Amino acid sequence: MTLFVDMDEVMADTYAAHIAQYNLDYDEGLTAAECHGQEVWQSVPFDRRESIYRHTSLEGFFRALRPIKDSQAVLKELAQKYDVYIASAAMEFPVSLREKSEWLDEHFPFIHWKKRILCGDKHILKGDILIDDRGYNLEKFEGRPLLFTSPHNIGTNGFERVNDWQEVAHKLL
Amino acid sequence: MTLFVDMDEVMADTYAAHIAQYNLDYDEGLTAAECHGQEVWQSVPFDRRESIYRHTSLEGFFRALRPIKDSQAVLKELAQKYDVYIASAAMEFPVSLREKSEWLDEHFPFIHWKKRILCGDKHILKGDILIDDRGYNLEKFEGRPLLFTSPHNIGTNGFERVNDWQEVAHKLL
Repeated sequence: MTLFVDMDEVMADTYAAHIAQYNLDYDEGLTAAECHGQEVWQSVPFDRRESIYRHTSLEGFFRALRPIKDSQAVLKELAQKYDVYIASAAMEFPVSLREKSEWLDEHFPFIHWKKRILCGDKHILKGDILIDDRGYNLEKFEGRPLLFTSPHNIGTNGFERVNDWQEVAHKLL
Repeated sequence: MTLFVDMDEVMADTYAAHIAQYNLDYDEGLTAAECHGQEVWQSVPFDRRESIYRHTSLEGFFRALRPIKDSQAVLKELAQKYDVYIASAAMEFPVSLREKSEWLDEHFPFIHWKKRILCGDKHILKGDILIDDRGYNLEKFEGRPLLFTSPHNIGTNGFERVNDWQEVAHKLL
């Protein structure tokens, strides 16, 4: 069985990093609670929205992300049972490409480079399960789509949902 | 119809670049004719083979590759008729990742980032046609595999072959 796993906001806490970088840039104290239910860029004043997007071209932004709680332990177990591939829509962010490779080397060394995919849209993936935080990635997937809960997607309906990695383990192990 | 196109030795002349870099490193005069029918690393003295592999981690190696003859013109036409994706097994070479993105921006700007895939093995690709110079990428493909001729694969049998981009145009346009 082939299992695809998204990186940002599933394995790596991009959401928290956007908030931290925003607070650094503007000397603010934005909290995750204030952003709940929406994207980080939707939670800041209109004239600062563009600056959130620009985080994605900062050298080191993706390299420094923290792994999402329990992702390492559960994925290590999943990799024993499934043909696990990492699938990240990273081509939008050229600076991130090498950083994502290095990040995986550090935090998920048991995922061989042959099992890593940096892509654009994910409609070309052929497999059985896809764990992703974005409905637009999941909706064209031919297998079983699992929506991984992130603060920005709590209002998204129509997908089987996993709230954290313990729930992934419960469903798939 | 979804058409996947490999980069190295299909769109980009990696083979010639390996020869040029080798000649630069060792002050030699190796020619493509001397390598014909085999890999470049198989065409150099045994104790220099490792150095060919190390080209793939040189900064700028992939960024400076020359596009294969007619690849730009034919792919531009193909992109009007097919859903064209670039699929490169680049994850083995972390230095190449951003360089390949920039190389595509320069030489194939009409291929949107959403249509670019940097991956490891290509068994996860779901689509109709794959043009590649490596039998191990083609053999598990569920659609129509096309072997793009490269000096190293002239002895490979068992695949429908295209010798150059004009032949690709003839078959697919």
